[in-house]
Amino acid sequence: MNEAGNRNPGFSLSIEAEDGPARLTTWTTPHGVIQTPAFVAVGTRATVKTVSSEQLAETGTQVIFNNTYHLYLRPGSETVASQGGLHRFMNWDRPIMTDSGGFQVFSLGAGIEHGVGKVANIFPGEEAPRGERRGKPGESMVKVTEDGVHFRSHIDGSQHFFTPELSIRVQRELGADMILAFDECTSPLHDEAYTRGSMERTHRWAERSLKAFRESEALHGYPQALYGIVQGGAFGSLRKESARVIGRMDFDGIAIGGNLGRTHADMHDVIDWTVAELPRDKPRHLLGIGDVPGVIEGVARGCDTFDCVAPTRNARNGGALRRFDDDGTRLRNFRINLRSERFARDSRPIDAECDCLTCANYSRSYLRHLLKTGEQLGQQLATIHNLRFMTRLFADMRASLEAGTFQQLRQEWLGT
Amino acid sequence: MNEAGNRNPGFSLSIEAEDGPARLTTWTTPHGVIQTPAFVAVGTRATVKTVSSEQLAETGTQVIFNNTYHLYLRPGSETVASQGGLHRFMNWDRPIMTDSGGFQVFSLGAGIEHGVGKVANIFPGEEAPRGERRGKPGESMVKVTEDGVHFRSHIDGSQHFFTPELSIRVQRELGADMILAFDECTSPLHDEAYTRGSMERTHRWAERSLKAFRESEALHGYPQALYGIVQGGAFGSLRKESARVIGRMDFDGIAIGGNLGRTHADMHDVIDWTVAELPRDKPRHLLGIGDVPGVIEGVARGCDTFDCVAPTRNARNGGALRRFDDDGTRLRNFRINLRSERFARDSRPIDAECDCLTCANYSRSYLRHLLKTGEQLGQQLATIHNLRFMTRLFADMRASLEAGTFQQLRQEWLGT
Repeated sequence: MNEAGNRNPGFSLSIEAEDGPARLTTWTTPHGVIQTPAFVAVGTRATVKTVSSEQLAETGTQVIFNNTYHLYLRPGSETVASQGGLHRFMNWDRPIMTDSGGFQVFSLGAGIEHGVGKVANIFPGEEAPRGERRGKPGESMVKVTEDGVHFRSHIDGSQHFFTPELSIRVQRELGADMILAFDECTSPLHDEAYTRGSMERTHRWAERSLKAFRESEALHGYPQALYGIVQGGAFGSLRKESARVIGRMDFDGIAIGGNLGRTHADMHDVIDWTVAELPRDKPRHLLGIGDVPGVIEGVARGCDTFDCVAPTRNARNGGALRRFDDDGTRLRNFRINLRSERFARDSRPIDAECDCLTCANYSRSYLRHLLKTGEQLGQQLATIHNLRFMTRLFADMRASLEAGTFQQLRQEWLGT
Repeated sequence: MNEAGNRNPGFSLSIEAEDGPARLTTWTTPHGVIQTPAFVAVGTRATVKTVSSEQLAETGTQVIFNNTYHLYLRPGSETVASQGGLHRFMNWDRPIMTDSGGFQVFSLGAGIEHGVGKVANIFPGEEAPRGERRGKPGESMVKVTEDGVHFRSHIDGSQHFFTPELSIRVQRELGADMILAFDECTSPLHDEAYTRGSMERTHRWAERSLKAFRESEALHGYPQALYGIVQGGAFGSLRKESARVIGRMDFDGIAIGGNLGRTHADMHDVIDWTVAELPRDKPRHLLGIGDVPGVIEGVARGCDTFDCVAPTRNARNGGALRRFDDDGTRLRNFRINLRSERFARDSRPIDAECDCLTCANYSRSYLRHLLKTGEQLGQQLATIHNLRFMTRLFADMRASLEAGTFQQLRQEWLGT
């Protein structure tokens, strides 16, 4: 453990097995142990959409991710603090991560200006909830300065100013186990010069985040761990530099954020450049990746944890995760569309080999009916299945790392 | 048991205690026993909105109500039959009732023309789901003839023709335990002459429903019970006549339907007129009533079962059922509005004395946050509470009937 270990006796990383950069670890937190590699289910507004904390625990989910930006606006971090923090607020006693607000700022700013998200085709994704507004392409709601970020709320247009110091204070109030330094994300359309300037500012914000973290107290009687964020876009020299700079700072963990390029191959390069420069003894989180090839390759390349809305968002749109189609062929996107006419009278579960509540009890025919008629239960049951799919995939990856068969698993899932 | 008992060996009614017209009964069905008085949770499209069948069972719900009209349109009764009927389709192994489609026809027809629902202030209630259409006031989508009802789908405007024979066939395919004869509902704005003509047609349709029921077979290897529906609007002479006519026919149970007047006092009269003429040995269902005073007075006046969307619809709108406010005063509407600002930092459960999953695990502050931000989990958790409230209220009524203290309970809940 680095110096942070002394400040945070509740946290410790134990590496149990390795296969090249890939590793099996035990990451101990004040709310229990996370066996990694692990998927981190996204619960933006202190709820993993459509499921209760009890249902979430039943899927085997070890850790969840809440969004600071959304909770800062509603219900407000002071309200969450008044309820004893996120764990008590949402009745989830396992580990929680929060982000810094940086990515949402990017989404409102450059993401909108450039018409892109983390990867070009996943923004803006879901419709804005009723009564909320979204910026139009070209209409930035954000202004970045050295001191911080001015932005307008996507809910009511109100003006806000986020700084590293405010992000840390808000995350102290929210009370997650793992929190993130404040950063600026860049888009694939930003050139190297802009990306470098932004990265260097993110490094200065990392120092300010660390200072604010050291000078503040955890609110809920247990310590929090602070992760630094590596930026640098898809530029090799920048990613390596950022990994060295952030890796040397006194963070408890490292997150890889921002623009990971336009293709999986780009992303693999970004991860490889970054991980090669990172210290071995800190947990590594890959931000915003949750597709099957992405997480398997991320594990292969040395990432420990992964958060992404895709499994749960896909579920709400009727996309149920599976490895093979019924004829035994591998599904290109690792999912079937439950809204399809072909399932109208299909009495089989999504996956006969899945042990989730949905597959044990409900047919594709029923799920299709619920999803086609807009019944919430369809989204809830599909979400339960997809979360269980992810926890089982990660459990299989952990077992293969323990058994020394990870490369075989990788080959079986992804082919040549 | 009447003659129907011989045809339906799976059904039997046992009256365990009485207090005036009020009664404690055991109504045995092929999917288990219903202890009455009982609340019947409404699951319009083969789902009690927002909750799984597992969650529903945990609330103590004994029996649910599905809507034939909605299921006939989507996914179609033949699709449900192909899946083994409603019980297997929705994974609910306790009793199910279906209605005949008559009330929905009323909602599309006279309900829209007259701008009224069952009681004037509860129509059209909820917003139409996305992609569906609702008629405008004055724009009828229905034409009633002696043979049946022509109507247009609220989903796509397609033409349909419902008859007593079709209603029975569809309900045979759906496979509920208790099914209803096809009827026409009238509105409070219909005069006595129209209401009489409609009632007499409903009686002719009752005979046709019985004939179609006798000539058809249950599809799923167990018998179904057919309930006749008493109509007659809020006119005493018509209600008495209808109760005598329907009560003498060879139905397994009796439902009280249609316009029950404009006030609770009107409804009490309608129930009293009807129940006085009904046979003692058949179960009695009051259609569409689920408010606290309505069900207590309905029990007092001899009704056994009650279905209504109100407890679940109110939940989705943030109305959580409680008897008393926090200061000990009785709540006029027996509910609190969880969306209220006063609950923003209220860490108490909805009701500290409630044993539901929601009250055991979640605060008002969290529920308000979920409901204000439009998160489905808020509606799910409020629904669980309201269903549990109803099952506990009915359990208390049953216990008081057994103990001979029902009048005391009625007095305590409703005052003078």
